[in-house]
Amino acid sequence: MTNDDLESLRRDLAAFAANRDWDQFHSPKNLAMALIAECAELVEHFQWLSEAQSTTLSAEKKSAVRLELADVLIYLVRIADKLDIDLLAAARDKIAINEERYPADRVRGDARRASEYEI
Amino acid sequence: MTNDDLESLRRDLAAFAANRDWDQFHSPKNLAMALIAECAELVEHFQWLSEAQSTTLSAEKKSAVRLELADVLIYLVRIADKLDIDLLAAARDKIAINEERYPADRVRGDARRASEYEI
Amino acid sequence: MTNDDLESLRRDLAAFAANRDWDQFHSPKNLAMALIAECAELVEHFQWLSEAQSTTLSAEKKSAVRLELADVLIYLVRIADKLDIDLLAAARDKIAINEERYPADRVRGDARRASEYEI
Amino acid sequence: MTNDDLESLRRDLAAFAANRDWDQFHSPKNLAMALIAECAELVEHFQWLSEAQSTTLSAEKKSAVRLELADVLIYLVRIADKLDIDLLAAARDKIAINEERYPADRVRGDARRASEYEI
Repeated sequence: MTNDDLESLRRDLAAFAANRDWDQFHSPKNLAMALIAECAELVEHFQWLSEAQSTTLSAEKKSAVRLELADVLIYLVRIADKLDIDLLAAARDKIAINEERYPADRVRGDARRASEYEI
Repeated sequence: MTNDDLESLRRDLAAFAANRDWDQFHSPKNLAMALIAECAELVEHFQWLSEAQSTTLSAEKKSAVRLELADVLIYLVRIADKLDIDLLAAARDKIAINEERYPADRVRGDARRASEYEI
Repeated sequence: MTNDDLESLRRDLAAFAANRDWDQFHSPKNLAMALIAECAELVEHFQWLSEAQSTTLSAEKKSAVRLELADVLIYLVRIADKLDIDLLAAARDKIAINEERYPADRVRGDARRASEYEI
Repeated sequence: MTNDDLESLRRDLAAFAANRDWDQFHSPKNLAMALIAECAELVEHFQWLSEAQSTTLSAEKKSAVRLELADVLIYLVRIADKLDIDLLAAARDKIAINEERYPADRVRGDARRASEYEI
C-alpha cells in the first residue's frame, strides 16, 4: 500500500470532510451536482479553443486545467465512497462491456455514438 | 505494480483507443465534452430523488450508477493522459490548497461556496 | 412585434457577436459547451442547498441565479440561431411528444425517468 | 398575446406539471439538475464532431438536436417560473452587463474567458 493511490485518496478525503462536519452535505445527489460543476469548469477552459489548441495548452492554462481535473477526481472519489463503489473495479467491468459493444474490427476510425451500435 | 491501479487503467484505455483508431477523436476538448456528458448521466439518476433516497439506492439503480461512475473515471483518465497530467499528484496538490482555503476551524458545518471564503 | 420576445433577443445577440467578430468562435459545438458551462454555474448555486432552501433564495442569491438563467437563455438562443431552429416551435413539438409519452393518468405523482415508460 | 411566446409556454408547462402532480419534484434544485442533464444530451451530439461538422448536421441529427434544445428551453422556463424570474428581462439585463464587460473595440476577434477581462 503506497500513499499514492485511489484508496489513500479516498481515506484522506473522508477525513477532510469529517473534520469539517461536511458529511451532512455530501449526499450522492449533492456530490453528483458538485462533480458536474467541476467538469463544467474544465469545459469552460476548452470551449473557445480549437481541438488543436486544446492539445497544446500554455503552461498557465495547463496548471489551471490540472487543478480542475483534480477537482473532478476528488468529487468522483467522494461519491463512490459514499455509495460504497470500487471505482477501479467498476472501470474494469465497464471496459469489458465496451470491448463487446465496440469490437475493434467493426468500429475502427468511427466515433458514432454508442447507441448507434446497440442494435 | 498491480493490475489494479490508475496507471494500468491509463495504459489499457490508451490501447483500447489505439486499437480502434480513436485517438483522432480524443482531443482534450472532445474528451472534456464526453466527460461532462457522462457526469450528466449520473446526475440524471439523482435528479428526482431526495437526498435521503440518493443514499439508499436499489440494487438495480446502484448497478447503473456504478457504471456511470466508471464512465466518468474512464474519460477523466483519458483526458489526463492526453494532457500528460498525473491525476493523483494533482489531487494531492488540490487537497493542500483546500486545506488552506477551508481551515477546519473556520468552515465547520458550513458549506457555502468557495468564493465566499476567498476574500 | 415587441422588443421583448425571443426573436428580438435573437437579433440583438447576433448583432452583439457580429460587432465583436465572435461568429468565428460560435460553432454549434462551442456554443453547446458554453451552454452547459452556464448551466453548471446554476447548479453550483444549488448543490449544497436542500430542495426546500432552493425554493426560498435570499435576495442576493436570487439576483445571481437570475443572471445565470439569463446566460443559459442567451447561449440557447445563439445555438438555435446558428442551427436555424425555432425554439418555441421545437418546444411545442416536444410538449406534444411528452403528452403522449407521459399520459397524466398513468404517471400522476411519479417522476421516474422517461426511459422507464418507454416500453 | 399570441400563443407562441415564452409566457404561454410557461403557462402550458405549469399546467403539464400540475396535471401530473409533478410540482412536488420540481424544486429549483431538481430542475437545475434536469436542465444540465438535457444540455449534456446536446453536448453528446457534438462531442465527436469537428466544429465544421457541427455547423452542417444531417437532417436526422438536426431533428434530434432540435428536440434537445426544446428540452433545455422547457426546463429553463420551468425553473424560471418556480423562482418567479422573468427570463427575457434577465437576458436584457445580462446583455447590458456584457456590453460593459466586453466593449466591442477591446475584444474584437478575441474570445478569452470573461474573467480575463474583469480586472
